[in-house]
Amino acid sequence: MTGQVLCTRDGPLARVTLSHPGKLNAMSRAMWRELQTLFVALQHDATVRCVVLCGEGGHFCAGGDISEYPAFRFHEADLREFHERDVWGGLQAVLDCDVPVLAQIDGNCMGAGVEIASCCDLRLAGASARFGAPIARLGFPMAPREAAVVMRAAGAATAAEMLLAAAVLDAPTMLQRGFVQHVLPDAALAEETLRLARQVATLAPQAARLNKQTIRALNPPLVPVKWPLSAIESIPSDAYRYADSAEHREGITAFLEKRPPVF
Amino acid sequence: MTGQVLCTRDGPLARVTLSHPGKLNAMSRAMWRELQTLFVALQHDATVRCVVLCGEGGHFCAGGDISEYPAFRFHEADLREFHERDVWGGLQAVLDCDVPVLAQIDGNCMGAGVEIASCCDLRLAGASARFGAPIARLGFPMAPREAAVVMRAAGAATAAEMLLAAAVLDAPTMLQRGFVQHVLPDAALAEETLRLARQVATLAPQAARLNKQTIRALNPPLVPVKWPLSAIESIPSDAYRYADSAEHREGITAFLEKRPPVF
Amino acid sequence: MTGQVLCTRDGPLARVTLSHPGKLNAMSRAMWRELQTLFVALQHDATVRCVVLCGEGGHFCAGGDISEYPAFRFHEADLREFHERDVWGGLQAVLDCDVPVLAQIDGNCMGAGVEIASCCDLRLAGASARFGAPIARLGFPMAPREAAVVMRAAGAATAAEMLLAAAVLDAPTMLQRGFVQHVLPDAALAEETLRLARQVATLAPQAARLNKQTIRALNPPLVPVKWPLSAIESIPSDAYRYADSAEHREGITAFLEKRPPVF
Repeated sequence: MTGQVLCTRDGPLARVTLSHPGKLNAMSRAMWRELQTLFVALQHDATVRCVVLCGEGGHFCAGGDISEYPAFRFHEADLREFHERDVWGGLQAVLDCDVPVLAQIDGNCMGAGVEIASCCDLRLAGASARFGAPIARLGFPMAPREAAVVMRAAGAATAAEMLLAAAVLDAPTMLQRGFVQHVLPDAALAEETLRLARQVATLAPQAARLNKQTIRALNPPLVPVKWPLSAIESIPSDAYRYADSAEHREGITAFLEKRPPVF
Repeated sequence: MTGQVLCTRDGPLARVTLSHPGKLNAMSRAMWRELQTLFVALQHDATVRCVVLCGEGGHFCAGGDISEYPAFRFHEADLREFHERDVWGGLQAVLDCDVPVLAQIDGNCMGAGVEIASCCDLRLAGASARFGAPIARLGFPMAPREAAVVMRAAGAATAAEMLLAAAVLDAPTMLQRGFVQHVLPDAALAEETLRLARQVATLAPQAARLNKQTIRALNPPLVPVKWPLSAIESIPSDAYRYADSAEHREGITAFLEKRPPVF
Repeated sequence: MTGQVLCTRDGPLARVTLSHPGKLNAMSRAMWRELQTLFVALQHDATVRCVVLCGEGGHFCAGGDISEYPAFRFHEADLREFHERDVWGGLQAVLDCDVPVLAQIDGNCMGAGVEIASCCDLRLAGASARFGAPIARLGFPMAPREAAVVMRAAGAATAAEMLLAAAVLDAPTMLQRGFVQHVLPDAALAEETLRLARQVATLAPQAARLNKQTIRALNPPLVPVKWPLSAIESIPSDAYRYADSAEHREGITAFLEKRPPVF
């Protein structure tokens, strides 16, 4: 039971659902790989005109599946592979999808949830949704390319508030910060997102793909497909050297032992 | 009767007015060229201290003059020349103007209107102004450099909402999105913009020109004068290959036939 | 009596206070150098986990100390040294500090004050704080790298409004513009900033430093430490040629003579 990423179709609309029951859809390694597989397939499916990305059971995604972390996070090479292959593989597939992608965000949108939402074109949130990336409680920083997509969508100050102060921000605040484009009553979120997706699907599909390619090309710092990006490439080679550090172990251990960490 | 761009002077103030009666000031090819000519002249006129850019008759600009489109849009080389010479020539002249430029926006501000407003330094809007770039209904994408100025001024998500969902957004929303700096009662817009222009005109004019040069140099992705911009230059050579596509023809034909397009 | 920058410690928290009594903490050259010295020291002090940067006596900082300007501003080489060594030395030290820095902003936050606040990670403001950079009244533009930090934090349009129109904006407006993250009742500002600083100090300190390094690396156009930045480096060599111009002399002279400038 490591969770899964589901895809359903309704004519030109595709719905991708993060599903990890009992864990608020926390992303396991298996789910990151499924996310990549699904979005690569959507990108190559000429019949898809709009994708809605959502979570199951009243939450978008509560973050990563921390129960998996002790198996790989404390070893630098394994940690790098997790972030650069599994996580980034999933995020890049969403970014590289030329079909418009709408994030339908309710409940918790934390860590991996904010990262995934940051890769979508538009973000619609329920009024009671909550956003953050409180991984400083877990003793580790956000991976550079993951921070890049969050900063691009949420701005540097909001990313800093999430990462440096472990802030959890509500939907109206995230609207004001420009991360969310629309806040809706929780009960209206799914219907309103579907209405917008149907609107997108009536429009010229080739123009949509060309517009997405242009927006991606012009939206630094993340230009993942064909354009080289010096800012990303110059990320220090020691980005994952913290793997075996005391505070990294303390943060994750404390979480799993259900006690506050002491840094 | 292809519309015109007018310029009047009042001491150190210049007023540039988009005028295409009966078409909500939609930009014809002739108007794009006039816009360029006027702003090149303003840039070289040392007596001008502030420019107000507005539209005639209660609207800023409803977009391009679609009645002209069948004559050139379906042929790739002609389409490229239209966007890269006529449209970009006009926009770049506004961007390159070292004199502060205020956009006074009422009524419809669509497509070309959003692009022109994006090249101004500050945007003031009447409360009932409406913004969008619903060209996906016409079956074509925004040209890369035009998308760049809109994304720079409105943000990637707002540009995506306009381009991918054909969204039309009101003035308070565009204030919240950071595109518009001030929303005023419709009846107060002209007077308040004039008041701000007079304020600008009292300040040190050489400092204003140096500040504009600095802001332009530091404001990626559009650095049109002397600095090369790799993001713009790497726009794929096939950016206009869609000219003869079925959906492009359908979009424009349907508009001219006053029927909904079928994509 | 040229003012000073003070630093006090309370466990993992450091408080840096701009202090220039009777001048609303206007930055003298000596204060810029002290700001640099203090932040270089904080960066190398492994026991510091959060820095609060504030002003004394109900104001953050009213700008530069104009009484010093006639001694150096009208000579190009001296002017360049002031901006590139003294001012930028202070700002870069704040930017280069890997410890989270919170700006606690009350009263006047003008010119140098906006620049210093722009180099902090988060900005909290009292409800009656006022922001601007009305140096066009003094007849000179903002130095390129100083404009870069302000534009990065406040956006190009807000920087343009401050620089081209000498606009003074209130705290709610600066919240809406994304410069300030939180506006608080004046009486609650200090306590709420301290609460946030304590929250930051409980979190993993190595993760905070790594996050700050990542955010800085990915947050163009200012990447001051190790990454070259072409936009900054291509600032024209004549950026300070205005030193001896008539309008520069008129602006500063008029201010010191307490009369309106005539440009």
